[in-house]
Amino acid sequence: MFSNESIIALATPAGAGAIAVIRISGTDAIQITSKHFKSIKGKKLMEQKSHTILLGHIVDGNRVLDEVLLSVFKGPNSYTGENIIEISCHGSTYIQQEIIQLFLRNGCKTAEPGEFTLRAFLNGKIDLSQAEAVADVIASDNAASHQIAIQQMRGGFSNEIKELRAELMNFASLIELELDFAEEDVEFANRDQFQDLINRIQLVLKRLIDSFAVGNVLKNGIPVAIVGEPNVGKSTLLNSLLNEDRAIVSDIAGTTRDTIEDEISIDGIGFRFIDTAGIRETIDVVEGIGIKKTFEKIKQAQVVLFLVDSSQLTADSALEKLKIEVEKIKNLYPLKSVLILVNKFDLLNEAAILNLKTQLKTDNLQQSTIFISAKTGEGVEDLKSELLSLINTGALRNNETIVTNSRHYNSLLKALEEIQKVQNGMDAGFSGDLLAIDIRQALYHFGEITGEISSDDLLGNIFANFCIGK
Amino acid sequence: MFSNESIIALATPAGAGAIAVIRISGTDAIQITSKHFKSIKGKKLMEQKSHTILLGHIVDGNRVLDEVLLSVFKGPNSYTGENIIEISCHGSTYIQQEIIQLFLRNGCKTAEPGEFTLRAFLNGKIDLSQAEAVADVIASDNAASHQIAIQQMRGGFSNEIKELRAELMNFASLIELELDFAEEDVEFANRDQFQDLINRIQLVLKRLIDSFAVGNVLKNGIPVAIVGEPNVGKSTLLNSLLNEDRAIVSDIAGTTRDTIEDEISIDGIGFRFIDTAGIRETIDVVEGIGIKKTFEKIKQAQVVLFLVDSSQLTADSALEKLKIEVEKIKNLYPLKSVLILVNKFDLLNEAAILNLKTQLKTDNLQQSTIFISAKTGEGVEDLKSELLSLINTGALRNNETIVTNSRHYNSLLKALEEIQKVQNGMDAGFSGDLLAIDIRQALYHFGEITGEISSDDLLGNIFANFCIGK
Repeated sequence: MFSNESIIALATPAGAGAIAVIRISGTDAIQITSKHFKSIKGKKLMEQKSHTILLGHIVDGNRVLDEVLLSVFKGPNSYTGENIIEISCHGSTYIQQEIIQLFLRNGCKTAEPGEFTLRAFLNGKIDLSQAEAVADVIASDNAASHQIAIQQMRGGFSNEIKELRAELMNFASLIELELDFAEEDVEFANRDQFQDLINRIQLVLKRLIDSFAVGNVLKNGIPVAIVGEPNVGKSTLLNSLLNEDRAIVSDIAGTTRDTIEDEISIDGIGFRFIDTAGIRETIDVVEGIGIKKTFEKIKQAQVVLFLVDSSQLTADSALEKLKIEVEKIKNLYPLKSVLILVNKFDLLNEAAILNLKTQLKTDNLQQSTIFISAKTGEGVEDLKSELLSLINTGALRNNETIVTNSRHYNSLLKALEEIQKVQNGMDAGFSGDLLAIDIRQALYHFGEITGEISSDDLLGNIFANFCIGK
Repeated sequence: MFSNESIIALATPAGAGAIAVIRISGTDAIQITSKHFKSIKGKKLMEQKSHTILLGHIVDGNRVLDEVLLSVFKGPNSYTGENIIEISCHGSTYIQQEIIQLFLRNGCKTAEPGEFTLRAFLNGKIDLSQAEAVADVIASDNAASHQIAIQQMRGGFSNEIKELRAELMNFASLIELELDFAEEDVEFANRDQFQDLINRIQLVLKRLIDSFAVGNVLKNGIPVAIVGEPNVGKSTLLNSLLNEDRAIVSDIAGTTRDTIEDEISIDGIGFRFIDTAGIRETIDVVEGIGIKKTFEKIKQAQVVLFLVDSSQLTADSALEKLKIEVEKIKNLYPLKSVLILVNKFDLLNEAAILNLKTQLKTDNLQQSTIFISAKTGEGVEDLKSELLSLINTGALRNNETIVTNSRHYNSLLKALEEIQKVQNGMDAGFSGDLLAIDIRQALYHFGEITGEISSDDLLGNIFANFCIGK
């Protein structure tokens, strides 16, 4: 995994398009490519400056494989820190394959998933949390997850962590120095300044740890379950929520209607509708044969939309039943938000609506009820506002750092634990040699986040999740 | 369609990958991009030289959309002949969409299919037949179609056509000049030289027209039907033919087993198996219920592989039946090549094989029979050689120009027709004014091929078949 051999991979999505980009990185990348490239203007690839582009042909002996544009990047000023050649060729799968095969026969090896980014990390171009953010940027599919990932890729909280780690390491050295002069009872490390640092570290760690809950939800989208009897308007509601987004998204080839419906973006926050296809197809009611399936959906969700048909609520018994069902969900899952959506309310007359509202008030349900018409779109904006208000997005709006990676989260938790041990030690007046052990542990966990401490196993795990070509 | 407005499109395949390339072309392309780009090193995009690359961020106000590489091409030294910016961004569909939307809101319009190549044509960077070859290059999926398309994209026969057209146009002018001096009975156009030119033109046209039959087959793959009763080994044969190719192809993500099986490349020539899935699934025999379906397949094919199980041929009546069935196909389709494949011959003993061969000789079938074992692979190489020998690929191997485009073919036919009228006129001693009319017609059809003569309708038809982004 750590060889210096030049690696090659398709960097653009598989399949046919107008163009495709093949990326080669390694000390010999330019030299290897120069043997199979002929510039149209007769320029020499080996003499080309960094960050320039040449038009020419990829040739295998006398055979012309394609007319291409060649981008030249010279290390260390490249993504990986090595020499990089990017071949922009015609987008047929056949040509991509022929070019890659040509270079595999002539000095390159196939890149492992994420190996370009791994090399960037190993060559000190980015730290580990930035490398992880690259995969998050590629995977981001809404404004919130994108913003978090871009922020992290550009440095994010790792700069903060690195600075605190450097300060902490400084104190660790001073405290360890005291051990050498133990008999003289000197304090190289000022305890007040050290306490101040420990306080700051605890604050930062707590803030970052707290951000994980919201960050994780924002990154993956907020899971929402729509439950209700058949024909109350579930798919109409989904379509209505989709309306604005779809007009934008449909311009892009390859985004199918199905994937859009599964995730809806409201003000840049992704809402993920659980098992949408199932909801539309199966006959689920809270009571009856579908009860198990419905509760499975609810279990996975953070928000439950309980959709009812207003025309079926006119009987008192119906309202009573609704109340019982909602109570049941709330009792089972007290932490989940439940919204009752009274659909098709435009079909009721004003008196009936007023009557319904009064009864909901009596039943203490009016706070969590929204009257909508999925068909005409009335009330759908209210629903969107309500969904947004359920999510604590304050941190995102204030551009605060948000942790979304569970590996970082775990390291932060462990670091905080060790720092608290240091604090306890300070409070109890422990000697420097005892403090030093816990400080070293905390330093270790800080280093895990940014990759100053890493192992082959850890790197293997992280980069195995990358796509090939990145 | 012919505005100067800057156009934007995703140039790489839709979907998520490591990177995606978005292309902007137009007089204002650099200026428009500069308003939403911040170089990391503080360089000014407007001052950037052609064919260079800048690292920076695409920004919408204060919001960072992505860290990107920007390739700058200045007209006329670009693909379209206009200024071009290529944005190499992270490959999430979300980011692609955000960047494209940003520029659509700020001075760009969505590119029509093929509009980049259309602009290249309109700006005189390539002729029409080269533009058409770009689409063929992208669509090429085997060595033969790829070689033909690359050759045509690099100029191919359009240079030859252009030269002949220029010479012919010169004579046309001289002959038309004679008309002005009709009373003086002078001949500006040397008739011997003119006859020589007409001869050369006829030779070239006939060669190109003849190449169309083989060219078309090579471009689209040679259609092959496998017929035979169930369980004679059709799918085993397909797998056996596939063997070598699959190992190479399976490295590339997104090429599924199904698409490979439909087209097999032997020595770079594509062989397209008609309705392969159907062949494997339906119970087709020449006699019986499947007869109609089988003949439909044969009708579409250029080569028919008639697969039989050797163990079922031991009875004399079986061989007689085989002979009748093969005769039937040959009578109905005398131009198609029929190969009898005696499968599972490895299960027979030597005496039985010898006996079978003798009988096939008696029946005059031995020439078109190959003994194979689809399972062990024996005889499969013989089959491949036989398939290749059925196709006249001499032209391809000699690097001769091959016409594959039916629009070019039709124009060549019409041009030849007009040239033959000119020849007839010459033979009959027609006067210059009569010759001139037919010469002008021939010139018109020559011009159609390279696009010197074109109409909006024609261009619309050609470029509508392109993908967006090319």
